[in-house]
Amino acid sequence: MIQPLAVSMGDPAGIGPEIIAKAWDQRADCTLPPFFAVGDVRAVQAVWQGPVCPIREPAEAAAAFDSGLPVLGVADGGEIVPGHPDVDGARCALHALELAQGLVRSGAAGALVTGPVSKAQLYQIGFSHPGQTEFVAERCGISAENAVMMLAGPDLRVVPITTHVPLSAVPGLLTIELVAAKGRATARGLIRNFGILNPRIAFAGVNPHAGESGKIGREEIDILIPAIEQLRAEGINATGPFAADTMFHGRARATYDAAMCCYHDQALIPIKTLHFDEGVNITLGLPIVRTSPDHGTAFGIAGQNIAEPGAMIAAIVMAAEAAARRAATTA
Amino acid sequence: MIQPLAVSMGDPAGIGPEIIAKAWDQRADCTLPPFFAVGDVRAVQAVWQGPVCPIREPAEAAAAFDSGLPVLGVADGGEIVPGHPDVDGARCALHALELAQGLVRSGAAGALVTGPVSKAQLYQIGFSHPGQTEFVAERCGISAENAVMMLAGPDLRVVPITTHVPLSAVPGLLTIELVAAKGRATARGLIRNFGILNPRIAFAGVNPHAGESGKIGREEIDILIPAIEQLRAEGINATGPFAADTMFHGRARATYDAAMCCYHDQALIPIKTLHFDEGVNITLGLPIVRTSPDHGTAFGIAGQNIAEPGAMIAAIVMAAEAAARRAATTA
Repeated sequence: MIQPLAVSMGDPAGIGPEIIAKAWDQRADCTLPPFFAVGDVRAVQAVWQGPVCPIREPAEAAAAFDSGLPVLGVADGGEIVPGHPDVDGARCALHALELAQGLVRSGAAGALVTGPVSKAQLYQIGFSHPGQTEFVAERCGISAENAVMMLAGPDLRVVPITTHVPLSAVPGLLTIELVAAKGRATARGLIRNFGILNPRIAFAGVNPHAGESGKIGREEIDILIPAIEQLRAEGINATGPFAADTMFHGRARATYDAAMCCYHDQALIPIKTLHFDEGVNITLGLPIVRTSPDHGTAFGIAGQNIAEPGAMIAAIVMAAEAAARRAATTA
Repeated sequence: MIQPLAVSMGDPAGIGPEIIAKAWDQRADCTLPPFFAVGDVRAVQAVWQGPVCPIREPAEAAAAFDSGLPVLGVADGGEIVPGHPDVDGARCALHALELAQGLVRSGAAGALVTGPVSKAQLYQIGFSHPGQTEFVAERCGISAENAVMMLAGPDLRVVPITTHVPLSAVPGLLTIELVAAKGRATARGLIRNFGILNPRIAFAGVNPHAGESGKIGREEIDILIPAIEQLRAEGINATGPFAADTMFHGRARATYDAAMCCYHDQALIPIKTLHFDEGVNITLGLPIVRTSPDHGTAFGIAGQNIAEPGAMIAAIVMAAEAAARRAATTA
């Protein structure tokens, strides 16, 4: 039995509080494990009429979970108006993230699920990480390079090797070392978090048709193929590079456990095309389990009771399964 | 009533002959209009046991269509071994393409559907165009820039603004003029070929999250936005640039008639993820209608009677509909 999961609310003016509450509503139908929200309790009350159980520590969450959504409160988030983010809310979101990750690292909570934050607001209060992933990696003492962002849905898992950089910077950022490091962390992550014994990781080429043997770009020959050979020499079932456009239909997806993509949209386009309302972001390479719904704060629909909790529910389920798997392996 | 369609066989050692014959087999179920194959009649006979009706000119196709697959023969393609392409086959494919497009331009055939060719083989006999699209455009006296490759499936149409170039070359190739020209030709093509009166064309950003207001790349601000404004000033319903990763799920697809993508994989990944066995390549901006199944020669499965004719059938249907629409408009 794992500890209750810590779910940080994200920006209190976004849809985070609403989808966490809606996930609690569906706890029975989706057989969700006990979890507690971390954030300003008023953010939930502003958008949801259901029962809330304020708790003082994670240990109270399991008992409270049947009667209401357990909420571990953090500092006052100022005035909360759904859809209207401000710096008080950003501070609240950051404190919730800080507290939640700390509780998971200490073992008081079983896994970390993070709600969506507004980077624009966070940057105004001095947040200097590219995103929550890098923040959590740093807290865990892991270099951002070895923390791997994987997007996972029911039928597809993808890993972007580079992330939030201009497209023009992508070819210059790809190195044999980086590609091999991401492949290695992905293979290990598939074993630890998903219980896949001999994971198959397939690399997408960076150029159209994977470069056509060098006729449309050289990155496949100079970088991807040497990295794949290195991984194979280490015993990892790495294949490719393949033409990216033919990697994501049903029959192709059945041939690998994770697709390694060279840049953000190469990975995010197929996963969001297939799994827009249920995609989960899971960080591989950390000592803790961390997942997140693969969508943003959606300020435009916050407070209207129309946000879909599917991705949050999927993130909670995936975190619980990964935590249980790790606990079983290390017990 | 449009003239019979001319369907060039493509490489005789590829799956072209087989899928054309299988399309004829399904002519009743799919209510296909009369069409005739152009190529070496032995290429069909090598992979298919059904009836073949050699014809001497397109005018004979309609009458022959009920009793067998009409084939307008071109020069001897040498020895034909499915799955084993050679330069004789490439010459045969090129002659079939040349003849078929000429018959359509002359009005003897109603529209052009091209089977898959092997560029590697074609290059060996001196073919110097990037692909069949550019070849046909040149024959029609249209500059390659004004001929637009659109990939269309039942739920999505995409246009790659740049195509078979290294990813690293994409940012340098994008100009306001090119983006506007492709947008203009796409809008016109949606009206002429698909009968959409006020087409909505949505542009994808080149950078992750469409550049986040310049924080992740400047192409959106420097190129895409001015081009979109120019198109809007001309009365074209152009929108964007949007984050590419959130443009292709069901609800997003319902908001536009064509997605304009900055590079090959940005367009081809979503269409092939959604419509792998039924995607059609249609060339906009030509005086004739030209479509093609959106797949290659598939030499690996040629001659095994397992090739799926779905995309070829969809290409024939789309060509016939577009030709009928054009005929009605210009009549």
